[in-house]
Amino acid sequence: MISKKMESLVDNNSVIRQMFEEGKKMAEEFGAENVYDFSIGNPNVPAPAKVSETIERLLKEEDPVVLHGYMPNAGFPEVRQKIADSLNRRFGTSFGLDNIMMTVGAAGGLNCALKALLNPGDEVLAFAPYFVEYRNYVANYDGILKEIAPDTDTFQPDLKALEASVNEKTRALIINNPNNPSGVIYTEDTIRAIADILKEKQREYGSEIFIISDEPYRELVYTGAEVPYITKYYPNTIVGYSFSKTLSLPGERIGYLVVPSEAADHDRLFQAVTIANRVLGFVNAPSLIQKTVAECLEEKADIAFYARNRDLLYDALKEYGFKCIRPEGAFYMFIQSPVPDEKVFVEDAKKEHILIVPGSSFACAGYVRLSYCVAYETCVNSLPGFQRLAEKYKLK
Amino acid sequence: MISKKMESLVDNNSVIRQMFEEGKKMAEEFGAENVYDFSIGNPNVPAPAKVSETIERLLKEEDPVVLHGYMPNAGFPEVRQKIADSLNRRFGTSFGLDNIMMTVGAAGGLNCALKALLNPGDEVLAFAPYFVEYRNYVANYDGILKEIAPDTDTFQPDLKALEASVNEKTRALIINNPNNPSGVIYTEDTIRAIADILKEKQREYGSEIFIISDEPYRELVYTGAEVPYITKYYPNTIVGYSFSKTLSLPGERIGYLVVPSEAADHDRLFQAVTIANRVLGFVNAPSLIQKTVAECLEEKADIAFYARNRDLLYDALKEYGFKCIRPEGAFYMFIQSPVPDEKVFVEDAKKEHILIVPGSSFACAGYVRLSYCVAYETCVNSLPGFQRLAEKYKLK
Repeated sequence: MISKKMESLVDNNSVIRQMFEEGKKMAEEFGAENVYDFSIGNPNVPAPAKVSETIERLLKEEDPVVLHGYMPNAGFPEVRQKIADSLNRRFGTSFGLDNIMMTVGAAGGLNCALKALLNPGDEVLAFAPYFVEYRNYVANYDGILKEIAPDTDTFQPDLKALEASVNEKTRALIINNPNNPSGVIYTEDTIRAIADILKEKQREYGSEIFIISDEPYRELVYTGAEVPYITKYYPNTIVGYSFSKTLSLPGERIGYLVVPSEAADHDRLFQAVTIANRVLGFVNAPSLIQKTVAECLEEKADIAFYARNRDLLYDALKEYGFKCIRPEGAFYMFIQSPVPDEKVFVEDAKKEHILIVPGSSFACAGYVRLSYCVAYETCVNSLPGFQRLAEKYKLK
Repeated sequence: MISKKMESLVDNNSVIRQMFEEGKKMAEEFGAENVYDFSIGNPNVPAPAKVSETIERLLKEEDPVVLHGYMPNAGFPEVRQKIADSLNRRFGTSFGLDNIMMTVGAAGGLNCALKALLNPGDEVLAFAPYFVEYRNYVANYDGILKEIAPDTDTFQPDLKALEASVNEKTRALIINNPNNPSGVIYTEDTIRAIADILKEKQREYGSEIFIISDEPYRELVYTGAEVPYITKYYPNTIVGYSFSKTLSLPGERIGYLVVPSEAADHDRLFQAVTIANRVLGFVNAPSLIQKTVAECLEEKADIAFYARNRDLLYDALKEYGFKCIRPEGAFYMFIQSPVPDEKVFVEDAKKEHILIVPGSSFACAGYVRLSYCVAYETCVNSLPGFQRLAEKYKLK
């Protein structure tokens, strides 16, 4: 009855989302305090106070017809200018109004970028492990997501494999930095190397290959490391940003795309993403929250909150005998499954009321993702369960 | 450089949107009070006070992690239940939680419905004149919009033409009631007749043909007429609703889809629209505003405000010699162009600082659409311009 494309999506509904909904049911059954739901990136840190203060002030001071009304599809010009100014100040870029489009979260932005770029059959590369929704976004426009196998020693991009994967059909490479689910950060050297490879391949094929950089975790960095601003290294870049994680507003659906002036055919490309925003039915990013985030650009997530969770869980899990990379950014740990089929591990964990997501949802079987954007108590209280799992698998 | 599908969209960018942006520029140049911008459906009536009050209360009372957080992709369950209850009370329906999905405006909802239903090459019918964006929404999923020529005497659906237009490829009929741009309301008899034709055609072709009913103007009715609730007449129905017009919140992007339990394969269809909401990048309707509209379901637009504009403009334009149908609903007038090419009329009107949209943007050349959701003064002050246009064309 439903469309063929949706048939398989319904049959293989998002494991992450299913688990999120299952977690809510388990919380009802066993009590929220007895369920350790590490399934989804739904920040447990409240939005900064300035978000509420700004909304209240806007409601008092602004004309409601403007505040809740239509604006250009790319967003309120003054909001876009403020974001451009903030990026320029922080990253030494020189963006203006026509480099910033406000979007319905990063997911909405990525869809606009892909609709603007892809013809049927075009290939889009992604380094595994990657957020599995990318595959669906690419398929929306009849593109083909080609994954590049993970380097499970470091979870850094495999540059040789990248070089071998680009062909005349390659239209884009999606990167996600800091990375979901591995928590690694791509260094400046890595970014430079990726840029060099793609520049060379563009020359070889006479094509334009875009880097689409998905950056909702840009501000979530524990090591003091700098996350390089990609537009400075490669002209054909579209950056997708979301305020979901930094301002703890995932339900509000607010983010932006950056289309740098150096990108090929910039004016037409910017028009294309803007029209994609309209015809895909977003029309514009939600208006009140657009004006709100523009006043909160200096606000930050409470990184200490996540760092405490990370340290507790990483140290404990290592001690119990689990294997994983120490996360440098985002709020995920990517843990090697103690048994070959990680879905067995996921099911065993569920018996301990611990919800984690199989790595096969990130094109990386044999691993599980743990989202530690939860209350500290949840982390503490989950530890006996993890310890029992370690004993069960005889990890020591 | 950009995708082929976007090429033609960029080359033929929305006339309505271009005019909206041109109107803003003209307002800067000539002063807002000297520009009569009837181009877009951007309500000039402020949102009801209860909207601000509810937002302020939610910010004080609700846990921000919930208020701004992820929820099921279909929306907060309690919000969906409140909407179901309100519809049941007002229209004698019996909807529950699993009949309501919160959407990013009606445009977002229509895209989810079409993604859930369409295979490439499927045909979707629409009665001209229709909101031209439907064509783009259908094309997003490689469907083909087939328009049914208008009956320019009444602007009511041409039922004979409908019957002749349905074939084995017909997957859906989009209706819009009250109608943008004509302002007419489809009567219960018309709805029954449409339902009978489609039921018969379903039998003939052994197919499931959906009515997708786009109803942002449901509450904007001047005549006391009842707008029939379509699910009571035809099981394979998806209703798209938006709070944009009723609550004057077009920029906030908030609406819902109704998928009645009687629809073929309901459970799977509801899953499909929900997953479409996720993979298209909406993820969910904006969270704070979801909870806000749920508390404002009894609020209404100030219909008297629009009625006053309608009466003033309709009476004056008729007096000057223009021809048009008296609008019964929505906030549009569809005026016959005094010259065969209505784009000439649109350009002449622009010289009077009057912005109206050519009917060719609604698949109905020879007419223009005037949006009267503007300040009363704008209507009053536009009249000398209309009078000069009438004299220019010697309408009397």
